[in-house]
Amino acid sequence: MYNSIIVRLEFDHRLVGFGDVAAAIGKAGGDIVSIDVIRPGQDKSVRDLTIQSPEQAESGIVEALRRMNGIRVINISDRTFLAHLGGKIAVTPKLPVKNRDDLSRVYTPGVARVCNAIHQDARKAYSLTIKRNTVAVVTDGSAVLGLGNIGPYAAAPVMEGKAMLFKQLADVDAFPICLDTQDTEEIIRTIRHISPIFGGINLEDISSPRCFEIEERLADELDIPVFHDDQHGTAIVVVAGLLNALKVVGKQPEQVRVVVNGVGAAGVSICKMLLAAGVKRLVPVDREGAIVRGGAYEHPMWRWLAEQREVQEAPGSLREVIRGADVFIGVSRGGLLTAEDVQAMAPDPIVFAMANPTPEIAPEEALPHAAVVATGRSDYPNQINNVLAFPGVFRGALDCRARRINEAMKLAAARAIASVVSGKELNASYIIPSIFNERVVAKVRYAVIEAAIQTGVARRVPPDFR
Amino acid sequence: MYNSIIVRLEFDHRLVGFGDVAAAIGKAGGDIVSIDVIRPGQDKSVRDLTIQSPEQAESGIVEALRRMNGIRVINISDRTFLAHLGGKIAVTPKLPVKNRDDLSRVYTPGVARVCNAIHQDARKAYSLTIKRNTVAVVTDGSAVLGLGNIGPYAAAPVMEGKAMLFKQLADVDAFPICLDTQDTEEIIRTIRHISPIFGGINLEDISSPRCFEIEERLADELDIPVFHDDQHGTAIVVVAGLLNALKVVGKQPEQVRVVVNGVGAAGVSICKMLLAAGVKRLVPVDREGAIVRGGAYEHPMWRWLAEQREVQEAPGSLREVIRGADVFIGVSRGGLLTAEDVQAMAPDPIVFAMANPTPEIAPEEALPHAAVVATGRSDYPNQINNVLAFPGVFRGALDCRARRINEAMKLAAARAIASVVSGKELNASYIIPSIFNERVVAKVRYAVIEAAIQTGVARRVPPDFR
Repeated sequence: MYNSIIVRLEFDHRLVGFGDVAAAIGKAGGDIVSIDVIRPGQDKSVRDLTIQSPEQAESGIVEALRRMNGIRVINISDRTFLAHLGGKIAVTPKLPVKNRDDLSRVYTPGVARVCNAIHQDARKAYSLTIKRNTVAVVTDGSAVLGLGNIGPYAAAPVMEGKAMLFKQLADVDAFPICLDTQDTEEIIRTIRHISPIFGGINLEDISSPRCFEIEERLADELDIPVFHDDQHGTAIVVVAGLLNALKVVGKQPEQVRVVVNGVGAAGVSICKMLLAAGVKRLVPVDREGAIVRGGAYEHPMWRWLAEQREVQEAPGSLREVIRGADVFIGVSRGGLLTAEDVQAMAPDPIVFAMANPTPEIAPEEALPHAAVVATGRSDYPNQINNVLAFPGVFRGALDCRARRINEAMKLAAARAIASVVSGKELNASYIIPSIFNERVVAKVRYAVIEAAIQTGVARRVPPDFR
Repeated sequence: MYNSIIVRLEFDHRLVGFGDVAAAIGKAGGDIVSIDVIRPGQDKSVRDLTIQSPEQAESGIVEALRRMNGIRVINISDRTFLAHLGGKIAVTPKLPVKNRDDLSRVYTPGVARVCNAIHQDARKAYSLTIKRNTVAVVTDGSAVLGLGNIGPYAAAPVMEGKAMLFKQLADVDAFPICLDTQDTEEIIRTIRHISPIFGGINLEDISSPRCFEIEERLADELDIPVFHDDQHGTAIVVVAGLLNALKVVGKQPEQVRVVVNGVGAAGVSICKMLLAAGVKRLVPVDREGAIVRGGAYEHPMWRWLAEQREVQEAPGSLREVIRGADVFIGVSRGGLLTAEDVQAMAPDPIVFAMANPTPEIAPEEALPHAAVVATGRSDYPNQINNVLAFPGVFRGALDCRARRINEAMKLAAARAIASVVSGKELNASYIIPSIFNERVVAKVRYAVIEAAIQTGVARRVPPDFR
């Protein structure tokens, strides 16, 4: 993979010429694509060199420059780091405040009348403030990407990235809130206290099992939607992909036995949605093996699973329970599944191996034996990416002022995502649309609003539904 | 005062003609300046009429329209309300996310390297996230403008307006946080928990005396600046104005006796800054009369005042203590001061009557007897407006990564604001620059950074100070 780095160098022209530097970079495998003079000078100058090279050559190039007499390496940036300089989002006025007339409208004294109007009728917060279009992206930094518990400061770039996607894909104004506490009660209380300005709460990268209680309690206490994306965003896209994968192999949700491996944040939500989608035989599996109907468990979510009639009674390890299964959905760890396991599944098996960055089984290994393979990665076909879900889900929930995001809305979102792939387009390596497919957000939004109205959680009927 | 309203009407063309409507509006004192057809139709149509009129005529116009046969008034908006529709700020990406290459840089997988860099060195949050340019504008809605305790929802338009000004005037990204609690401990805890993404905290419209403890505790607990604008923003601009007013009358801060009437949030901070500015004779006055040196008070801030050697010993009512005073600064209630009181002051008295919306004394009444009069209002000369202070104060504090905003920085800001009015320009009706004077923010920023570096609270030396 080719990469760009920008190296800021101080040249001592008495000791080194530019030709020497260019030669050294070329010898180390790099290619100078641009030069910016930052500080000119007779004896010494500072320049930024943009260097393209294979990723593995980067450290060699830098090493070579550091060793050169007359060269001081001031700084090294690659394009990813440069994209993050100063952060990735801005808070901008929607109208300019250029003169006293503007000021008297958006601030004192005019604003007082607007404040009074909301004071008299709190619902006007939805028309006269940013509430109707604004979502908090809240994390405690306890389970960030594959990086684990890196805390609120290091989590911020992910939350900012998410806020960018919210705006770019669904015109939602999202603001990152990174909490310096990982205590369940403190998190709940803090989010409740800051909720008035927000029209929705997107919980992000909060570790299991705290994420369940935090989401449930907040969903009950607040009258705005609360949505833990790691659970439901993933589940919505998994179910979307699975509905299409089942079409590819000609099976119905009601007929198949589904093994869900990894019963954490995403796994539980996937199980719930599979039941809502009509799956009749479900085998949730965690490190100790299958969670079985009637079993006794500490984890409240596992207890809930053990009470569902669709959950199978037969115990066993993953290797045992996968025999004869139609579908494997992994949200666990890399390398847990072998080619033999896939061979032991029912005919035309479906394998969703979504552990990140290493899937439960490499697509190359699974594909000879599976009918459909999906992963969380962008370098294989069928990427299960929750960027497909959250923008449209919140766009819809905000537009109809949904009190909450319920199972019906999530399932509607999954069906909407699946429907973007037409019958003609559908095949084993195209079960899910690209995240840049422009029809996704509109379809998800529409389906979410429709379901919200039908289930009575919408407080407003958007103009296109009247 | 002329105002614009926009009235959305449904016309039933079988019952009423447009001429009738125009005539009725004209008769009621209005002037149709534009017409937009929202929904055309043969029998019925919907139109927006923009109507200009004196403010007092508005309700008569609407009344006349409501009474007309064949007209249904759907909605009435004035320009102030229209400016607030959907809120006044947006959260926008700094770079577009158009394709997978963009996505992999600002979000997964590229963002993981940036997260790791911050995890290894938390200070990198300042270069790689929005922290270095982002301020929370936090309120509990307990003391909003002159409106009082209207709560977090109704306070939001003020906080959004402030966020607009932060961006427009000083390129600071500010986000409104409206708290649904008014408990001191809960407010402190909540702000602490959400602090990691912010480079500064602007407290706003929090009632006294809670505001003192909240600010003090947070300033001690957090390593980012915490600034209660109602206290210090006002105080900075008052002191700026006073320094110039004293020049107009040819007096020194050390010579004058200053009466500060109203010892709430702003009054206390004004007293503190006056002492820092060199005032040797200070008379703080509240409802029960002068706060005197050596007096016993419940309020911790009043106790602090009673310990200062500059605070005068003589007790008395406002009427008594103002006799012979050089300066009156009112941050109290309308109509407290009479022309006789001003006449009883020392020669060339200075009167800052800043109660809102009605000053302690109307400028018309004070001016015959006073050398300089200032108010908080924009319709008289010498408006004391804290918009002159907070943008530059935070711009400076952020640019040098100040740990806190101390008295030296505030006094430097006041002197900087005062310095924008040159010796040639200075006169009794021009002691303070306009909030749209483009030199204000740059001067305040520079002075704040300089003071921060000198007092050791700066953690970074900006390039223009190297």
